[in-house]
Amino acid sequence: MLHFASDNWAGAHPAITKSLATHASGYSKPYSDDELDKAVERRFGEIFERDVAVFYVATGTAANSLALSLVGKPGGIVLAHREAHIVVDECGAPEFLSGQLRIATVDGAEGKIDPGRLRKKVESMDGDVHAGRANAISITQATEAGTVYSLEEIDAIAAIAKDFGLPLHMDGARFANALVSLKCTPAEMTWKRGIDMLSFGATKNGCWCAEAVVLFDKTKASDFPYIRKRAAQLFSKSRFISAQFDAYFRDALWLELAHIANTIAADIASAITQTKSGRLIRKPQSNEVFVVFPKSLVASLNEKDVVFYEWPTPANFEIAKDEQLCRFVASFHTTREDVAELSKLLEDWQGQK
Amino acid sequence: MLHFASDNWAGAHPAITKSLATHASGYSKPYSDDELDKAVERRFGEIFERDVAVFYVATGTAANSLALSLVGKPGGIVLAHREAHIVVDECGAPEFLSGQLRIATVDGAEGKIDPGRLRKKVESMDGDVHAGRANAISITQATEAGTVYSLEEIDAIAAIAKDFGLPLHMDGARFANALVSLKCTPAEMTWKRGIDMLSFGATKNGCWCAEAVVLFDKTKASDFPYIRKRAAQLFSKSRFISAQFDAYFRDALWLELAHIANTIAADIASAITQTKSGRLIRKPQSNEVFVVFPKSLVASLNEKDVVFYEWPTPANFEIAKDEQLCRFVASFHTTREDVAELSKLLEDWQGQK
Amino acid sequence: MLHFASDNWAGAHPAITKSLATHASGYSKPYSDDELDKAVERRFGEIFERDVAVFYVATGTAANSLALSLVGKPGGIVLAHREAHIVVDECGAPEFLSGQLRIATVDGAEGKIDPGRLRKKVESMDGDVHAGRANAISITQATEAGTVYSLEEIDAIAAIAKDFGLPLHMDGARFANALVSLKCTPAEMTWKRGIDMLSFGATKNGCWCAEAVVLFDKTKASDFPYIRKRAAQLFSKSRFISAQFDAYFRDALWLELAHIANTIAADIASAITQTKSGRLIRKPQSNEVFVVFPKSLVASLNEKDVVFYEWPTPANFEIAKDEQLCRFVASFHTTREDVAELSKLLEDWQGQK
Amino acid sequence: MLHFASDNWAGAHPAITKSLATHASGYSKPYSDDELDKAVERRFGEIFERDVAVFYVATGTAANSLALSLVGKPGGIVLAHREAHIVVDECGAPEFLSGQLRIATVDGAEGKIDPGRLRKKVESMDGDVHAGRANAISITQATEAGTVYSLEEIDAIAAIAKDFGLPLHMDGARFANALVSLKCTPAEMTWKRGIDMLSFGATKNGCWCAEAVVLFDKTKASDFPYIRKRAAQLFSKSRFISAQFDAYFRDALWLELAHIANTIAADIASAITQTKSGRLIRKPQSNEVFVVFPKSLVASLNEKDVVFYEWPTPANFEIAKDEQLCRFVASFHTTREDVAELSKLLEDWQGQK
Repeated sequence: MLHFASDNWAGAHPAITKSLATHASGYSKPYSDDELDKAVERRFGEIFERDVAVFYVATGTAANSLALSLVGKPGGIVLAHREAHIVVDECGAPEFLSGQLRIATVDGAEGKIDPGRLRKKVESMDGDVHAGRANAISITQATEAGTVYSLEEIDAIAAIAKDFGLPLHMDGARFANALVSLKCTPAEMTWKRGIDMLSFGATKNGCWCAEAVVLFDKTKASDFPYIRKRAAQLFSKSRFISAQFDAYFRDALWLELAHIANTIAADIASAITQTKSGRLIRKPQSNEVFVVFPKSLVASLNEKDVVFYEWPTPANFEIAKDEQLCRFVASFHTTREDVAELSKLLEDWQGQK
Repeated sequence: MLHFASDNWAGAHPAITKSLATHASGYSKPYSDDELDKAVERRFGEIFERDVAVFYVATGTAANSLALSLVGKPGGIVLAHREAHIVVDECGAPEFLSGQLRIATVDGAEGKIDPGRLRKKVESMDGDVHAGRANAISITQATEAGTVYSLEEIDAIAAIAKDFGLPLHMDGARFANALVSLKCTPAEMTWKRGIDMLSFGATKNGCWCAEAVVLFDKTKASDFPYIRKRAAQLFSKSRFISAQFDAYFRDALWLELAHIANTIAADIASAITQTKSGRLIRKPQSNEVFVVFPKSLVASLNEKDVVFYEWPTPANFEIAKDEQLCRFVASFHTTREDVAELSKLLEDWQGQK
Repeated sequence: MLHFASDNWAGAHPAITKSLATHASGYSKPYSDDELDKAVERRFGEIFERDVAVFYVATGTAANSLALSLVGKPGGIVLAHREAHIVVDECGAPEFLSGQLRIATVDGAEGKIDPGRLRKKVESMDGDVHAGRANAISITQATEAGTVYSLEEIDAIAAIAKDFGLPLHMDGARFANALVSLKCTPAEMTWKRGIDMLSFGATKNGCWCAEAVVLFDKTKASDFPYIRKRAAQLFSKSRFISAQFDAYFRDALWLELAHIANTIAADIASAITQTKSGRLIRKPQSNEVFVVFPKSLVASLNEKDVVFYEWPTPANFEIAKDEQLCRFVASFHTTREDVAELSKLLEDWQGQK
Repeated sequence: MLHFASDNWAGAHPAITKSLATHASGYSKPYSDDELDKAVERRFGEIFERDVAVFYVATGTAANSLALSLVGKPGGIVLAHREAHIVVDECGAPEFLSGQLRIATVDGAEGKIDPGRLRKKVESMDGDVHAGRANAISITQATEAGTVYSLEEIDAIAAIAKDFGLPLHMDGARFANALVSLKCTPAEMTWKRGIDMLSFGATKNGCWCAEAVVLFDKTKASDFPYIRKRAAQLFSKSRFISAQFDAYFRDALWLELAHIANTIAADIASAITQTKSGRLIRKPQSNEVFVVFPKSLVASLNEKDVVFYEWPTPANFEIAKDEQLCRFVASFHTTREDVAELSKLLEDWQGQK
């Protein structure tokens, strides 16, 4: 089988698992209160060039939901892209766990919020008590469309957040992939741009389960421990998360793994282009490739045990009846051999047409 | 340092960590949908001698909260012992995550609900819309007091649950410790007694993070996947939990580890008795020892880097001004050498008095 | 001043207020448990030709929110028209008070859900745990656009509800206006079509504050008293609602008042047409008139103290820069003289152009 | 029949109903935005000798729940007397509508929180994330036990609130009864003592439905409109509440009505004492009388159609097997003739013994 379904189909990098073994014995304080926990929090601070508050949670959905809960107000509405994970993939967890927030969607090409539309939308929300009020903005980096906001694009969103006094959240489930793509520092991609809260995901990039909420203003973090605990997201043996992050950050492993995934994704795109087997929706900027394939090719790949997702066609997207939008995802675990094999299957199909 | 603070201060058993390494490579379906996940679910079925629905969650608090959410009704009140974890240690998570439940406490000796008081309490809740209505009963096995409900005692609670049509939940954060103590089967301690929902905890007994909600009537489980997902408790790389349970159940490791912890707890109790250094509140039935020590002894042990908790004095409990209630917990990781060393410190203190 | 802003700007009909005086003295059981309360509930049954459960609540928003709460499931999504009151005018109350529901919008002309789009939308919601699941359908009768679903149009929606096992809710804030418009019986417009839950509004049609949830299947009403009480919507002196409904239904007052409002709205439309002062968006079917006026006319009317709302332009609606969409609402209190005066102002403006 | 069941069994005072008639015709802005609404808000300001924010809601339960919601924090716990309405009579509405709060009870004689116990309880809540944190204090004035906190007693509670930075809420469902009892000004009984939020109830004292949240610091009121609307508690025809308050405050009607109720309650107590038919639990301080009657007397009164509540025996209260605790409530509507008749029945029963 060839696996391109999702980066969460891969397991954990050996260094991550090894770190768990290293830290397994002996005693440590539970609930994020041990030396290792604190060392990892300091490590986050070094990485972000700033004293930050770090809170582990169980899932990316939890990170998003609880980060938004922290700033949620009665009648509050979060602005997000219509394809955002918090909109389409979290079963209402942000609304449920915040106890109050709703989400309004804003369109934009390439999975990114269009700043013009965002500003117009926020302006139209005049705080009328019947309609509710704008409460926060959430962007996804890298996006669900496999694209990456440029620093200037983040600036444009952040300017609106600032103008209207709205906290700005970044869903960083694929943070490392975006970072490697932009070739900038974590600080440059976040708080230096105006990001207030970050969902920092490492699970998709080689960890077992390592998700954290990072708050860039520690003075505003005092409610968060209660928000996390009442949502049943406070791990007792927190060192099992710390051990993962410890290895993840060591020797820049995290960047290396994201680099692999991004590079392989580019290779997949090249293979498709070279074999002329489908049309890429866009040049991949992170580790996801979206391509329109003939349905006959899809059937052929399925038959050959190539695993990938057939993707729902977005609104206003032109597609022929005998075509299918597909998503291929590369992970740290995907190899050049996998791509070579895929490439061969594409070529074979071209030959047999 | 000598560690008796809590079983969540220990890390993971080597077999658990090894299993993670074994299952780290290759691809598997996320979200509890892979072969290993399914195999572990079947294993649960074998262990409980019944087809069961198993749902992994991140914490014991999540297991309790979501199990109760499943049966929660508007105006619903859960009956639990006043020392129950859901009452004193979960920051309101069961109330919050259920969106509606409240908890009413029932007293009883030794950390166990008194059946007479429970029946009277439930009878007094006549469904009046102002007061709310009885909705479920929750017991903890082993209890927070280190005791274990006998099968007959569970029967007595279950009879009340049945009489009033109330679902019966068991908080099994220390399920294995209770099981080993009773020397019965998992089925005998649960659904054969009338338990409907079980929080099955393995974290305290040698896992990193392995908690599951077990539902004994699969036909009533259909809402649970949504309850879990909207609470942000659905792990993507679920095999990291399955891998732990796989090792946990293999060769009866789980029972062996619980047996160690219980035995060591008994040894701690013996050491205290033999050295006449304090008075045991009760004979430990699981892995927790509650003892009243002279404050001078507490100070002495603290000085010698013995780690344990000073416990809040329960209501109606007689204690002298120069005494302190203390809790010692044994885990799979605690050794006979640890107890011997503790014993020596107790003896030394006796000698120096 | 000439008032066409909204039907909730009018006070109460004298018969309603008189009934309050009639029932003010003496004692009666509180909390909807007195003879008058029960008599009114029976009256509802006669009107709907069926034994129904009736629950008073404080506002139309409460009626909608609690009716939907009754059938709400974890991960549940309510389908409603994008202009529905529950979508744009309730500050998230349905989501908040249900504790779990989200709302997805379906488009359709004239403020009505398009059955084809609805079916497609529901079909696309395959119960995936990440996306959530379809949970209920809500229609508004009369709609926020001043239109009325025909019985056949309700049938078309109800067929989809039935096919997918979804409860069907009707927001009847202007129930009487729709009923008078369709010239059918209350039963024919509701449960005979497949409506399960009705928000029955009387406030906009001449009462002070009289809103009720009507459940057509009494066997499914048992949770509702708790849902209402925990939402703080259980009135103590419930007779003050009953007294209003008693007068409202007596001698068909409610139908007479709605007839007045609808007729006057038609007169307003005629006045606009005859004076050629604006273009009607559509022929009014209830008591609301939507018209595109030249901005200069809007300014002129404002100057003359004519009170009406400038309405937000809907998506995909063509309007010139110097035009403004406006809403005029007639109530039981609006008179032919008011319309004549308006008509004269429109004529004057035409003359002065 | 003789009615002493509750003050919510009485209807409305003629002046209240008349005011509704007076204000019924004509048009006014909905949603608390009309001149009458504003005039009443100013009237509240005069009465409380301070600029206050006033928000109408539908029920006393709503007032309590939403006032507490305003100050609620994650993991927050409200301290209240174990007999408080928010504890025993609101079906969990404060917990539900706040989305997060729990309530912990504090004992104290005569239905009043014991300041010593309160301080100890708050001190014991050290903000531990597992246990949650103290968030607010709520007292009831007059209490559910028919007693009234003296100004000094309020001071004692307020001192604790201040020491721990906890907002202080007063449930004033029977505010006027307490005020008349203390013979002080509204300001002296509230913000001058340190009350931050008041549930101002008028329904029990002669209105149909007139409840308001009064916030003494207007600068902290900005979230409240959203809190109220999302809880579906924003009345459209708000003048129907304003009209009631307008009459309620005019010519000190409210104080007169409360004075009647309190006086009659004292008369009831006298009748019981003089006829030696039962033992009063305490001298009534407001409009409620608690008395222990022989069960044979209870039966006799029931037979004579005297309506009153048999009250649940509080914990630690000594009562003989053939006795029953009973509650008699006087309202503005209760007359001297009612008491005379009751007195006669008590005498008759004494004679027949």
